[in-house]
Amino acid sequence: MTAWRLTEDAPPPEDGMETSGEPRRRRSSTRLLVVAATVLLTLVGAGGLAIARSGAIFAERPEGCVKPDRTMQLYAVELPKDGTQIRLGYGTSPQTASYPGPTMEMMEGECVAITLHNLVPAATLEQLRTNPAHPLGVSLHVHGVKYTQLSDGTVQSGSFVPPGESRTYTWYAQPRNKKTGSPGTAGYWWYHDHVVGGPHGTQGLGAGLFGGLVVRRPGDPKPDRTYTVVFGDRQSINLRRGAATDTCDAQNPQPGPTCLVARKGEKVEFIVVGIGNDMHTFHLHGHSWADTRTGTVSNGEPFADGVPIIDNKPLGPGDSFGFQVAAGDSVGPGHWMLHCHMQFHSDGGMSTMLHVLDESGAMPPGHDHSHPATAAGAGATTGQHQHN
Amino acid sequence: MTAWRLTEDAPPPEDGMETSGEPRRRRSSTRLLVVAATVLLTLVGAGGLAIARSGAIFAERPEGCVKPDRTMQLYAVELPKDGTQIRLGYGTSPQTASYPGPTMEMMEGECVAITLHNLVPAATLEQLRTNPAHPLGVSLHVHGVKYTQLSDGTVQSGSFVPPGESRTYTWYAQPRNKKTGSPGTAGYWWYHDHVVGGPHGTQGLGAGLFGGLVVRRPGDPKPDRTYTVVFGDRQSINLRRGAATDTCDAQNPQPGPTCLVARKGEKVEFIVVGIGNDMHTFHLHGHSWADTRTGTVSNGEPFADGVPIIDNKPLGPGDSFGFQVAAGDSVGPGHWMLHCHMQFHSDGGMSTMLHVLDESGAMPPGHDHSHPATAAGAGATTGQHQHN
Amino acid sequence: MTAWRLTEDAPPPEDGMETSGEPRRRRSSTRLLVVAATVLLTLVGAGGLAIARSGAIFAERPEGCVKPDRTMQLYAVELPKDGTQIRLGYGTSPQTASYPGPTMEMMEGECVAITLHNLVPAATLEQLRTNPAHPLGVSLHVHGVKYTQLSDGTVQSGSFVPPGESRTYTWYAQPRNKKTGSPGTAGYWWYHDHVVGGPHGTQGLGAGLFGGLVVRRPGDPKPDRTYTVVFGDRQSINLRRGAATDTCDAQNPQPGPTCLVARKGEKVEFIVVGIGNDMHTFHLHGHSWADTRTGTVSNGEPFADGVPIIDNKPLGPGDSFGFQVAAGDSVGPGHWMLHCHMQFHSDGGMSTMLHVLDESGAMPPGHDHSHPATAAGAGATTGQHQHN
Repeated sequence: MTAWRLTEDAPPPEDGMETSGEPRRRRSSTRLLVVAATVLLTLVGAGGLAIARSGAIFAERPEGCVKPDRTMQLYAVELPKDGTQIRLGYGTSPQTASYPGPTMEMMEGECVAITLHNLVPAATLEQLRTNPAHPLGVSLHVHGVKYTQLSDGTVQSGSFVPPGESRTYTWYAQPRNKKTGSPGTAGYWWYHDHVVGGPHGTQGLGAGLFGGLVVRRPGDPKPDRTYTVVFGDRQSINLRRGAATDTCDAQNPQPGPTCLVARKGEKVEFIVVGIGNDMHTFHLHGHSWADTRTGTVSNGEPFADGVPIIDNKPLGPGDSFGFQVAAGDSVGPGHWMLHCHMQFHSDGGMSTMLHVLDESGAMPPGHDHSHPATAAGAGATTGQHQHN
Repeated sequence: MTAWRLTEDAPPPEDGMETSGEPRRRRSSTRLLVVAATVLLTLVGAGGLAIARSGAIFAERPEGCVKPDRTMQLYAVELPKDGTQIRLGYGTSPQTASYPGPTMEMMEGECVAITLHNLVPAATLEQLRTNPAHPLGVSLHVHGVKYTQLSDGTVQSGSFVPPGESRTYTWYAQPRNKKTGSPGTAGYWWYHDHVVGGPHGTQGLGAGLFGGLVVRRPGDPKPDRTYTVVFGDRQSINLRRGAATDTCDAQNPQPGPTCLVARKGEKVEFIVVGIGNDMHTFHLHGHSWADTRTGTVSNGEPFADGVPIIDNKPLGPGDSFGFQVAAGDSVGPGHWMLHCHMQFHSDGGMSTMLHVLDESGAMPPGHDHSHPATAAGAGATTGQHQHN
Repeated sequence: MTAWRLTEDAPPPEDGMETSGEPRRRRSSTRLLVVAATVLLTLVGAGGLAIARSGAIFAERPEGCVKPDRTMQLYAVELPKDGTQIRLGYGTSPQTASYPGPTMEMMEGECVAITLHNLVPAATLEQLRTNPAHPLGVSLHVHGVKYTQLSDGTVQSGSFVPPGESRTYTWYAQPRNKKTGSPGTAGYWWYHDHVVGGPHGTQGLGAGLFGGLVVRRPGDPKPDRTYTVVFGDRQSINLRRGAATDTCDAQNPQPGPTCLVARKGEKVEFIVVGIGNDMHTFHLHGHSWADTRTGTVSNGEPFADGVPIIDNKPLGPGDSFGFQVAAGDSVGPGHWMLHCHMQFHSDGGMSTMLHVLDESGAMPPGHDHSHPATAAGAGATTGQHQHN
């Protein structure tokens, strides 16, 4: 039998110090509790792993989510290798899996149940794990929104999916609550694997198991386009190593993971995520934004004047932020660079473009005399140019 | 005799540029001052060191502190080695010294006089110094609050403590002042040595001479528990290298420096500090906070809607931030990971747990089938389990 | 002829997912546009470079700038080598070029036309370039304010200056616009070369081609002094490697790029910029500031209470921030350290002082007994001590 008293924070209160004990444990004398405890703890460190999957007692849904408003299916699949690099992706169908995975959107107050199907071959997961004692599986760990231990997506909580199996994760976009002090969950977030290769999913992240999430609050400005850009070390933006592997056709850009296009005046939303081991600094030419929850300030907000306006923001692994800009506002159409401002990262290819077309959808000609062959004539066609 | 004129910022005003001179020096023509100066300057760089300790003229107390409201004793002592690594700690008694040192709490408006006693053997300080010309001593340098040169804790200002000696440092939690434009000093701060080993206290910091400080403003929300977590390179959280050296007993967690426990609904306050050479990103599972001074937003604040909500925050050496969360709000009890999101840091052990018990102080059983032996029965006891 | 349809963000909408398609492309069915396009795209990556300089169609001035309110001349010149390190600088005259270059100041609403003259010898630019296919030139790329493609300062947009030539860049400090949602451009920014050595100007930045820019909003507090401090890797503050190469005469400090001096009570403004490859953390002893656009909070601002107060801030390449403090407020005169808090950076010399004199312009004597020879007597003189 294990029982314990929740007493004092360590180190214990010290003699001769009037203050230090205070902030650690308030009213300890009246709160010296004798606790009947049934404590099952599992610490996951460099050493031991707890392989545990069922959860009879922990709640399935976070408080406030009576039942999911929506359900969706998500598939973790192996994608074609990038050279020798194993690539994995999430998709709402096995055929459409990609890295980043699908960008998710929720409204505060919503609750979503996502069933993750692990289609990644066990042999692939074996190749990726760094410790033979580590279990095989993929998971879904999300930032920002609420979930119980059963949807934590970690090994230690048992909330992962072995090869060939499925598991349902419940996410709740808890709204702001003045009574409990909850600030709400509206924001720019992301989701990712936390299991592949080791207890922090380092190999799953490196292979591509991540995606963007935006939680909106009623009244938030709505974008015309959303792009999720992920900065990872030795990987470039969205795991594409610069222009060489960029899928953006310079003569006919079709919006895609590394092909960012908008017409002038469109509200373009960026979801920016950091993964891996390094810091990055996200810089966008010609555009800036307010360092607020949405990147914008609206009419009459009393704090609008005090908020920093930025065009460059540091970004570490696990960080995510987002913002909306009016494409080409004041600066006009053009090919606006978007890059990590760490020079050896940008020089190494961590750089792409936001292509801003004019209001009619055309790019003004003439800025580039070295490529006259690309100065195609104007004209309309309904043929859609497909890109891979 | 040394005299000088405080004239222009360098580089001097340039011809042909209407603007550039302006922001550097305003109204320079009317402010071209002839100054009677007695200037004693000491620049501490890679090269020379100024060993100076007495200060006859500089004020002892910062303006606004008429006399200290409180006094306390603080001891710098050598602790048992961690392998071959020398460990030092601050304590309000020699017996209770630890790393981090005691968490301090002040209210805006308060002034505290702290007498630091250097009990660290001179031989130990000699081992730690990198330059034989560097003086032996420890100091107390604090972030955020006010202090004069005599309490700066640096070698160059002479405000350090040789072995066996004592020195009193005066800290003033200056309140916000609309007249002078002072924003106040309420916030999450830290204190540390600035002298051991070299002019920036690098060896003192690495050995453990640091602690958290919170300055509250009247009306700020009060926490039920406060934990100070310090991220240092190659050191893991609070200099403990992950679960292997974690003092948290998984079956009977007692709150301590790396054993973070709370009951559901308790207001848990984190003071997060970065030391060393590396960036880190602090991530807490299942909980998020507002990126404000306190981590919270309260009723009716007009900026509440624009503030980013985060669950991951970059943290460099010298940075400190803090916040309060309601433990387990919406997400329920559980073992909620808290780790650096830089993958090689978390994989290396920079990871621990916030153990959230239910309202009665128990952890719901059943999430971990692999450790049935730890499924202790329920029951009450008044026996307190002690941990080292 | 090139034509295309601006249709869907990639990856394309997926089956079975109710949400994911939404945020990427709103109202796609009604916006499936057939676009008559004349698209000229140039992607600059590790591989190809587009050497293009003229721009017939792109607008010269950003929208909102009817014509420049001011014009200025700026010169890029080669400065004396720092050891074997090539140094370049911007100046409003060739004789006054320096690193950092002149600190610029604009008011929101202003438009400035800056003519950059490239006086850097072609041979020097050749030495700095890393790829023989890269064009020779210097440029002016600015953060925060508005400019068209013709003033982007990049190779790909053709907006750079070959040796011996000149080019006019137009910057517009767009004001806040509640209608368009523009947050304005007031803030602490910087400008730099984007061309020397490679497509991101890495060699130009490393050699010294950068400077600070502040854009003020009507009503912003005005400083008495402004210092621009730039943190670069392996370079120390403003490319000076610590006290050894500091130009600050300890006995008679004259304000300069690395000699920061103010009298007590003066409003000192810092513009802090990060360049290079590394993160830094800017720490100032004895002073703190609000983490707002200006570093201050003014009377009656409803958000003042929620804003973090800081004295240490992480800073990555491309980041810039600024603030004002009242020199010596509460803490009094003294030599207040200002350093990167990454320990190996500060130990390596990334450290200097803010010298705060008393109201009369004198430094109280007596804090330094080891340097009695510098205890000069008091007295007045009109002779100005010149420093190089």
